[in-house]
Amino acid sequence: MKGNLLYEGKAKQVFEVEGSDDQLVLSYKNDATAFNGKKKASFTGKGKYNNLITAKVFEYLKDKGVNSHFIRALNDTEQLVERTTIIPVEVVVRNIAAGSITRRLGIAEKTVFTPPLVELYYKKDELGDPIINDAHAFLLTDVTEQELQQIKSMALAVNTQLQVFFEDIGLTIADFKLEFGRNKNGEIILSDEISPDTCRLWDVNTGEKMDKDVFREDLGDLLSVYDNILNRLEAVK
Amino acid sequence: MKGNLLYEGKAKQVFEVEGSDDQLVLSYKNDATAFNGKKKASFTGKGKYNNLITAKVFEYLKDKGVNSHFIRALNDTEQLVERTTIIPVEVVVRNIAAGSITRRLGIAEKTVFTPPLVELYYKKDELGDPIINDAHAFLLTDVTEQELQQIKSMALAVNTQLQVFFEDIGLTIADFKLEFGRNKNGEIILSDEISPDTCRLWDVNTGEKMDKDVFREDLGDLLSVYDNILNRLEAVK
Ligand SMILES: Nc1ncnc2c1ncn2[C@@H]1O[C@H](COP(=O)(O)OP(=O)(O)O)[C@@H](O)[C@H]1O
Ligand SMILES: Nc1ncnc2c1ncn2[C@@H]1O[C@H](COP(=O)(O)OP(=O)(O)O)[C@@H](O)[C@H]1O
Ligand SMILES: [Mg+2]
Ligand SMILES: [Mg+2]
Repeated sequence: MKGNLLYEGKAKQVFEVEGSDDQLVLSYKNDATAFNGKKKASFTGKGKYNNLITAKVFEYLKDKGVNSHFIRALNDTEQLVERTTIIPVEVVVRNIAAGSITRRLGIAEKTVFTPPLVELYYKKDELGDPIINDAHAFLLTDVTEQELQQIKSMALAVNTQLQVFFEDIGLTIADFKLEFGRNKNGEIILSDEISPDTCRLWDVNTGEKMDKDVFREDLGDLLSVYDNILNRLEAVK
Repeated sequence: MKGNLLYEGKAKQVFEVEGSDDQLVLSYKNDATAFNGKKKASFTGKGKYNNLITAKVFEYLKDKGVNSHFIRALNDTEQLVERTTIIPVEVVVRNIAAGSITRRLGIAEKTVFTPPLVELYYKKDELGDPIINDAHAFLLTDVTEQELQQIKSMALAVNTQLQVFFEDIGLTIADFKLEFGRNKNGEIILSDEISPDTCRLWDVNTGEKMDKDVFREDLGDLLSVYDNILNRLEAVK
């Protein structure tokens, strides 16, 4: 069923599906990158964890009524998704201050955001994914005002679901990044991945970081952390 | 009438007014700074130009119904203003792409923004005045949603007036920065300065830069450029 390689990003390969214009196969790679691609490594097995964890997350979200591109996992490292035209805006939701925002705005680590903070970043590797406001989004992409409102509400709704989803397995979701795209009917649907590569996840009891920060900050063995998350998920979901 | 020095910024000293709690004297310095204070110089006479040009601009705006802190020029380098509590948000309006936005977002120089672009920056020297969105403004300052809407409309109204004001003296206003404050009645009023230090002004005919970029980019004699602007203003207003 897998057709030609359409394009390849830092974390996934994107394949066409033979005989279908509106589906794609996402193949999760073992590569890890951070700091806008300046730090790089490969971890055998990482692709499997992100694929299977993303599948669990999207299945849960589908169950809760969130419109997404996810169709089904095909095997350990691949999933079938609805093809979308990605809107080049990364939507970040922050529940608790961590990472870049603490340095950029001088906000103390662990500051709780009530309500959660929604930020937009222009998805453009050459520019280092700069933060933007709504007006920039209209200028730089073809997203409409109504679509952007919808994207922000969807992001907040996803946050509400993810907080419960991860709480159930003893993790606090501090922040995460989403991507949205337009399907062939012009509907905005949640796309891309939701994995420990794209979320900050902290153990509820120990506060331990259980996400890509382990790689960013050289805190330990990334694979065993991702394995731990998948095990927790398989135990309860 | 001038009382104690209250505080001193990069461009102005702020003095109390004896016997008055709700007025201040702004004293324009000869210092020029750029790139977040990394480039510095002093130009004898610069304070006079910025004081007198700002006074002309604020008189014009007052005439057009814009609520501002400006009361009157006291002498060549000082003006009397209404005391406000400055909201630590710099409001930038861009008509034409120039400066940081071209590098940050990869937008070609001279791109015309229709409608004009409004950007917010957190006024915090230690952080290099980072760009923020509305949600950050609510988090970092006590500005309310209604006040921020009012500030943005006022900024766009000021833009409309400034475009005419500068067109009249053969200058295109590419972008500028405003600051707003709350007076003792809690009203939001336009504060700070509007000068060639805080605007990008281009000669309509030659395209020549006639603003602080002359200092930033070492393009020539800053004082004669500022003198030229004041002369044009005195000839027509
Ligand atoms: N449903 C989808 N349809 C089309 N493209 C998608 C879909 N979901 C994700 N993508 C895109 O797949 C590409 C590969 O993903 P990834 O390797 O994570 O890229 P990046 O290096 O940009 O992070 C990205 O451009 C992503 O936006
Ligand atoms: N009406 C006002 N009331 C109180 N403070 C003001 C008023 N107008 C301007 N200010 C403040 O005066 C200070 C000095 O100005 P300036 O030298 O330009 O400072 P900066 O170094 O922050 O650019 C700034 O903090 C500015 O916000
Ligand atoms: Mg990605
Ligand atoms: Mg200033």
